[in-house]
Amino acid sequence: MKINLNRESDLSLINQISNILAEKIRIGALEEGSQLPSIRTFSKENQVSFVTVSKAYTLLEKNGYIHLEHGRGGFVRKHELKHSSGIQNISNFDWQIAIPDYIQRSQYMLNMGLENAIKLSSAIIHPGLLPSNYITKEINRILQDDSQIVARYGPVQGDYEVREVIKTYLQHYCQVETTSSEIIITNGVQQGIDLVARTFIGPGDIVITEAPTYTAALDVFRNRGAHIIPIPMDEDGMQTTILASLCLTKKPKVVYTIPTFHNPTGTVLSVERRMDLLELAQRHGFLIVEDDSWNEIYFDDLLPPPTIKSLDHSGHVIYLKGFSKALAPGCKIGAVVSNGTVHQRLLTSKSCADLGSPLLTQKALIPFLSSTRMHTHLEKLRIALEIRRDRTIALLDTYAPKGVTWIIPKGGLNIWVSLPSRGNTDELLVKAQQSNISFLPSSACYPGEPQYNHMRISYSYLEDQKLEEGIIEFCRIMELHLHEKKNE
Amino acid sequence: MKINLNRESDLSLINQISNILAEKIRIGALEEGSQLPSIRTFSKENQVSFVTVSKAYTLLEKNGYIHLEHGRGGFVRKHELKHSSGIQNISNFDWQIAIPDYIQRSQYMLNMGLENAIKLSSAIIHPGLLPSNYITKEINRILQDDSQIVARYGPVQGDYEVREVIKTYLQHYCQVETTSSEIIITNGVQQGIDLVARTFIGPGDIVITEAPTYTAALDVFRNRGAHIIPIPMDEDGMQTTILASLCLTKKPKVVYTIPTFHNPTGTVLSVERRMDLLELAQRHGFLIVEDDSWNEIYFDDLLPPPTIKSLDHSGHVIYLKGFSKALAPGCKIGAVVSNGTVHQRLLTSKSCADLGSPLLTQKALIPFLSSTRMHTHLEKLRIALEIRRDRTIALLDTYAPKGVTWIIPKGGLNIWVSLPSRGNTDELLVKAQQSNISFLPSSACYPGEPQYNHMRISYSYLEDQKLEEGIIEFCRIMELHLHEKKNE
Repeated sequence: MKINLNRESDLSLINQISNILAEKIRIGALEEGSQLPSIRTFSKENQVSFVTVSKAYTLLEKNGYIHLEHGRGGFVRKHELKHSSGIQNISNFDWQIAIPDYIQRSQYMLNMGLENAIKLSSAIIHPGLLPSNYITKEINRILQDDSQIVARYGPVQGDYEVREVIKTYLQHYCQVETTSSEIIITNGVQQGIDLVARTFIGPGDIVITEAPTYTAALDVFRNRGAHIIPIPMDEDGMQTTILASLCLTKKPKVVYTIPTFHNPTGTVLSVERRMDLLELAQRHGFLIVEDDSWNEIYFDDLLPPPTIKSLDHSGHVIYLKGFSKALAPGCKIGAVVSNGTVHQRLLTSKSCADLGSPLLTQKALIPFLSSTRMHTHLEKLRIALEIRRDRTIALLDTYAPKGVTWIIPKGGLNIWVSLPSRGNTDELLVKAQQSNISFLPSSACYPGEPQYNHMRISYSYLEDQKLEEGIIEFCRIMELHLHEKKNE
Repeated sequence: MKINLNRESDLSLINQISNILAEKIRIGALEEGSQLPSIRTFSKENQVSFVTVSKAYTLLEKNGYIHLEHGRGGFVRKHELKHSSGIQNISNFDWQIAIPDYIQRSQYMLNMGLENAIKLSSAIIHPGLLPSNYITKEINRILQDDSQIVARYGPVQGDYEVREVIKTYLQHYCQVETTSSEIIITNGVQQGIDLVARTFIGPGDIVITEAPTYTAALDVFRNRGAHIIPIPMDEDGMQTTILASLCLTKKPKVVYTIPTFHNPTGTVLSVERRMDLLELAQRHGFLIVEDDSWNEIYFDDLLPPPTIKSLDHSGHVIYLKGFSKALAPGCKIGAVVSNGTVHQRLLTSKSCADLGSPLLTQKALIPFLSSTRMHTHLEKLRIALEIRRDRTIALLDTYAPKGVTWIIPKGGLNIWVSLPSRGNTDELLVKAQQSNISFLPSSACYPGEPQYNHMRISYSYLEDQKLEEGIIEFCRIMELHLHEKKNE
């Protein structure tokens, strides 16, 4: 079993091996009861010492993933955390274990698959806040006018008409001046991240991210074998001075950033830092991937700073925008804006990935995106989510145990909550799930050495009453956890 | 500029370098007027000799891709064949050339982007033959019943209800016995191929394909850096005895096959060979990717042999099925059926790729797939396409010049036409395009050393009259071409 190890990482090889195998076990890529390669074989195949592998296996046993049998090797144990898609149905296809693969992890699936009544983990907008009736009416109208929309493929790059509409939208709402020929339609922002990764990122390439960052983006970069270097954040977002010093010795290829209402922390990258970042990109020749999912969801009438793409005239920024979450998740449409050969190369990748997004879901969004309803909808959404944010903060103020802190977001869907350093949100999650509550633990959000005392909660998905009950119960569980930790 | 070279290939390094750069030029990844790396730099970066690079550059010049200036190096020339998305709009983002990438080619885009009045190149069914009115009516009904379909994300694996319907469909039409938990919904078959590739294929891994094979699959495997070994075909499909001897010295990881109504040749893999292939997979531990796009479109009432998946009880076959082409291209739904950890690992990749296909397009297909209309529709489609096949063959019989041969397909959409060996379908295509006719030249269909005297024409897309005019004109152009070639 050959795995992807990063010998330049701050994380020890022991921890890397243990993490990768643990994740393979958790996603079901190593099934229960199956035998791990012998320590000798594993060490040979991956060119690491016998002692390193032996220590990694011991760590896996300590963490409950495998059991070691003297003389027989390691076997995968029954594991608690697993996602919802029927692992239990796997029959005995033992020979498959011998097929090496190029995937390492999907923390996203691991964390999103949990079925809970009270999902503080869902950074999704409650369906009741979305204009579904209008959109479905418009879909009906469009299909009546031209039923052959379902009978045609669109171009690989995306339908021309929807690209024109998105061009105007981006100009209006995101200050991004572009042409329809520079836009590629994707299956949500996730495919945009993936297109960048498969085009420009390979084993050992340096990718910079904020720390913490979006879990599913980390999954993509890891699976490409990237060397991910995290840059710490403060209240103004990624600390670009640290990036600047790093660039003196390392050569980043891609900087992935969520500058506005950052996921998971909710912070906003200051204008000065946006300009710094762009200047660094120009000086050192790297690409900036600007994931701009939440720009329009600002609170307190405070418009966020201009997008980095709007400041870029040299084609350094690949701009990613989603039109699903705030509008129609069931249509799952995103856009990638880039220039020059970077655009052409991303288009080649889109061709390999799926030859183009479905035409129906693209056409479905045209009426709404191009009408003034979009404006009204966004206004309502801002108000509704601001109320939810305020209520959640008020509940935390009242019920959260002493020592727990959080960042009040100026937009977006999430609050980043921190426990005192003795807290561990992985352990807290196990407890919370017993009360049917889920959140996103910080261990899923860090490249390299994870942090364990933070978590992301989202206020956008639950019904009002559920949200209130959930936060109060969540606070009670934090209290218990911190109490236990004090006595440990 | 670092490129992916395969030192075990039968293709010389000179040809590999020349092909890769030519493709980068054709897709616009190297833009017009830009300067190639110096021969010295290129040879150093790719660890090939100065002489090899020099010869590759000379070949590129000979083929019209670049011009060499003494003392200044190579520059990309204006190129004729380019795809339709506005390369002409590229401004000057010269610095981008320095960013290496992990893509090599998209023959598919190159060949499909050509805009022609008479597209014999389109292996797509004419919209008039598809049940669009019924499907759009059903979409309206579904959305009236539950407008929140547009407001929800589905699971990464695909909507449960549509997986259940597809399970039943596969059982009925493809003899594939599976469970909904073993199905992953994809954006068409293309994403299925891509999921397999990104999960199991990496640099140097051996992938076996038929020769010729599906262009866009070759693109995917090449872009993963696979070592693709072609297996010749005869009238019973891939010659499995040749594969068997190959397995004595090489270790294939994946065998990609289109056993039924093979694209582009239209042949059918015999039952014996299907069993041979499975036995070889079991003996040598490789995966079979069975691309089964056209199983239901058989002619002359002759049912094709059982799918390989239906013979597989050991999880060696990854089965790919599309529900777009014969039903609703605008919904672009495909399915991947696999077992055990292979399934789990593909699911992880689907998560990275896009977190799941759009819910709307999945739900849209449920009524049709689960009604008896599907049965009637397929019956009608078979008849309509059989008539088109017969008409096309009759026209070829009458008008094709002497020495031109073709395989009469027993199903599917395509006819594989061969010129005498002096013919060259790349050159023929240039001529054909002047008469607004396109087809798929064989150069796009071979891994390794291409063949130049075959081509695929499709009879499924054009209106009856256009098809007739097109074939007659196509025959006239072949005649001219062969005449010219005789005199060369």
